[in-house]
Amino acid sequence: MGRAGLLAGPGEYDYRRPLNNCEHQSLTSISISPVLLCGGSGTRLWPLSRADMPKQLQALAHEETMLQATALRTATNSNDLQFEAPLVLAGEGHRFLVVEQLLHVGCPPRAVILEPQGRNTAPAVAIAAHWLARAGTPDALMLVMPSDHLIGNEEAFRAAIADAAPAALAGRMVTFGITPSEPATGYGYIEAEGDIGPVRRVRRFVEKPDEETAVAYVARGMMWNAGIFLFKASAYLEALATCAPEVAKAVDDAVRIAEIDGMIFRPGGAEFAACPSISIDYAVMERSDKVSVVPVDMGWSDVGSWDALWRVTAPDAEGNVVRGAGALIGCRDSLVRNEGGPFVAALGLEGMVVVATGDAVLIAPRERSEDIRKVVDRIEDEGYELTRTSHEVRRPWGSYRSLGQGVGWQVKRIAVKPGGQLSLQKHARRAETWVVASGVAIVTVEQVRKQIGPGESIFIPVGSVHRLENPGPEPLELIEVQQGGYLGEDDIVRLADVYGRTA
Amino acid sequence: MGRAGLLAGPGEYDYRRPLNNCEHQSLTSISISPVLLCGGSGTRLWPLSRADMPKQLQALAHEETMLQATALRTATNSNDLQFEAPLVLAGEGHRFLVVEQLLHVGCPPRAVILEPQGRNTAPAVAIAAHWLARAGTPDALMLVMPSDHLIGNEEAFRAAIADAAPAALAGRMVTFGITPSEPATGYGYIEAEGDIGPVRRVRRFVEKPDEETAVAYVARGMMWNAGIFLFKASAYLEALATCAPEVAKAVDDAVRIAEIDGMIFRPGGAEFAACPSISIDYAVMERSDKVSVVPVDMGWSDVGSWDALWRVTAPDAEGNVVRGAGALIGCRDSLVRNEGGPFVAALGLEGMVVVATGDAVLIAPRERSEDIRKVVDRIEDEGYELTRTSHEVRRPWGSYRSLGQGVGWQVKRIAVKPGGQLSLQKHARRAETWVVASGVAIVTVEQVRKQIGPGESIFIPVGSVHRLENPGPEPLELIEVQQGGYLGEDDIVRLADVYGRTA
Repeated sequence: MGRAGLLAGPGEYDYRRPLNNCEHQSLTSISISPVLLCGGSGTRLWPLSRADMPKQLQALAHEETMLQATALRTATNSNDLQFEAPLVLAGEGHRFLVVEQLLHVGCPPRAVILEPQGRNTAPAVAIAAHWLARAGTPDALMLVMPSDHLIGNEEAFRAAIADAAPAALAGRMVTFGITPSEPATGYGYIEAEGDIGPVRRVRRFVEKPDEETAVAYVARGMMWNAGIFLFKASAYLEALATCAPEVAKAVDDAVRIAEIDGMIFRPGGAEFAACPSISIDYAVMERSDKVSVVPVDMGWSDVGSWDALWRVTAPDAEGNVVRGAGALIGCRDSLVRNEGGPFVAALGLEGMVVVATGDAVLIAPRERSEDIRKVVDRIEDEGYELTRTSHEVRRPWGSYRSLGQGVGWQVKRIAVKPGGQLSLQKHARRAETWVVASGVAIVTVEQVRKQIGPGESIFIPVGSVHRLENPGPEPLELIEVQQGGYLGEDDIVRLADVYGRTA
Repeated sequence: MGRAGLLAGPGEYDYRRPLNNCEHQSLTSISISPVLLCGGSGTRLWPLSRADMPKQLQALAHEETMLQATALRTATNSNDLQFEAPLVLAGEGHRFLVVEQLLHVGCPPRAVILEPQGRNTAPAVAIAAHWLARAGTPDALMLVMPSDHLIGNEEAFRAAIADAAPAALAGRMVTFGITPSEPATGYGYIEAEGDIGPVRRVRRFVEKPDEETAVAYVARGMMWNAGIFLFKASAYLEALATCAPEVAKAVDDAVRIAEIDGMIFRPGGAEFAACPSISIDYAVMERSDKVSVVPVDMGWSDVGSWDALWRVTAPDAEGNVVRGAGALIGCRDSLVRNEGGPFVAALGLEGMVVVATGDAVLIAPRERSEDIRKVVDRIEDEGYELTRTSHEVRRPWGSYRSLGQGVGWQVKRIAVKPGGQLSLQKHARRAETWVVASGVAIVTVEQVRKQIGPGESIFIPVGSVHRLENPGPEPLELIEVQQGGYLGEDDIVRLADVYGRTA
């Protein structure tokens, strides 16, 4: 598809006439539907971030996870902006965690759209737009936000949204251009036309530059492309149909046969699989002539590396950022983060990153932290589970982690939330002994169901149907000792599951 | 005590007449009693080396521990040298491990002398000399060796011993002077008089020099003082009585009331406590005029730091020395050692040391590895057990380690050797559940004694008298789940113990 034919289209928005519209809207309050993109599985923050627990689900810089912080950012209405509950796009494997995290901060999602496969942002956003259309609001304003960014100045962000809304209502697709703090080479840049008003027409999007080019971009007043957008659902779908019709078609097909299960929205897997994997920038923003940009300086960071996290966190007098069990002696400008790993003793480090978890520790110069991909690739090549599965594995009923293993045995600590219950299951090749460490358990083994408390134990022979429940009200912690010639997680037959995981 | 009066003494040995003696001795074979100094509790190789498992009991560079390697060095007789079984000097807390390690390599000790307190080497060697005198061999040749050194060229060492023996038999106290490979500042130096023959009179001992002085020492042909000595027991005791009478007196008193229990020799604690803490160098060698030195170039290292270990180990093409689970990407000249810690991912390290264990990981520039004392001090100040107790705690019956803990509970893995048995014991504040992971256990709880196998478990209520045994022949691995408000190791009453630990 050529771009020339797309330069002039119907419904062109005149950015020189926003004032009346803007005043009118601020009086009546504009309704906005946040769309949280939560589908990433990035491992640039390995070993903390893993496929089963990616960056957006981690509490990297604050108490809240990045997803929670993103949801909270648009959880409070103001005079001029009224936010709906968020639509969330996530992978199947993260759905329980996503919902749990959002409920935990009082931001229940309006819907969770499960992407059958990762197909990048253009198709994901299209599904959300369809969802809004099917909800009877085809002209709803969508505020599309990656859920793994930090924004230091949320007031500035809200002001930028208020600035962008009238243009979006008028049919423009508005992106937010971050005022660069340095000539970064890790982001795409946006160039605006003219310099009048808060909403400017986009001249061009450019890819990540080299260092020299980045300096020139910053000198010309170009902005970072943060991947945050505001537009009407209808405007996006129209633009997509024009700019990337094969994407529009595949999404149409997938949405038409979507399954709806409460707040869960599942597009058709085979249809979605046929969709090209393409970013919203490349599929629409770079091709459409209806794109505007609102410049904003809001303390934004995508925390794309451990170095970036060090940069956005206030260091101590020696320039160190430390979290978790450890001691630093004579260290400078270093990040030491310990999330359940062994005690970290750091001596004489300068500009280093040390990240420890229960099963892996990363050590690298801070300036090399962009290269962590190489570490992850190497470990994946060698077949380790370390990049896919977190040491503490989350499940809808709670979590578990391996405490230790030997020849023919493994010990796990299983934590079950009050009211939680594991699936009714059996194992072909291992026996298990459960010992209650704290709390109360209801255990079922074959036909017998009984309650056991701290210090009580029960044996589950190979092949026996069994289930574990926490009747509450306290959390349950249980030690499981497994015995058998094969102890893999895949030796499980789920006969029934309250979380629908038997399919 | 002044030194001037000691310069000329009786029985001066003439180093210009060794030939006849030497030939005579080599025909008849000289008997030598190795004395292994195993009392150190150094933490310069923390986190691997700890108070309960110091460097000499660790397998640092080879399959054998340093103590084992030291014992094996004098385990084989040759034409001219005939070695007795070793006398070992060790602390009470290490006695089981010392004996176990020596038996494991077929070097049963002749006696294990337990130092009631650490009082440095002069008193320790004196006890060994007394032991030999009491055994009816006051003129036995003692080969005093620290048990935490590496010697690459054992042939050279044996040749040096053969060279030294005639002088020692004639009453000299012979030290071995290591040919320096560099102007090291970490060792004391020895200056010899003249340069004739393999055995030279010592002009002086000097303390660890600064760098400039070290260069001058090396240029003058001075040698490192390795703390290895050969002398007659009687010669040492005489010299001690003259040079350090207060040490001689305290040791006499302590030895006079020593308890003997099989191969265990326990000097009187209060008497020994009254002894000054002083090294053999300072108490005797620097003060006596009967001291000679045999120069030797034998690939010696005291492995006094992680840097030293890196230097004595053959690195790979990138200069890295790697042991244990980990991946190095773009690293150079680094030591990565993982002994049961989490997977170590090292990216872009240059000249670094990373040492991981199950409960601590150290990261430092290699050149700072002499400063690990600072790390250990800091951790001790903060009250962590990390410098005293190893993650895997050795006991005469086997070992245990903590697998995890929570509020009110802890899980341990207990390994019991075939035939091993824990003490008959009880706990005032915790209950325990034992689950057999592999092997077979005989468990006693109050009046009931029974055998349980893999997957079987037993509950031990608070206050119940209990015991765990491994009837063999396989090793026993057992998971212990503890519950209680207090879970410290000191909540134990030992009622009976086959290893004599109830006292």
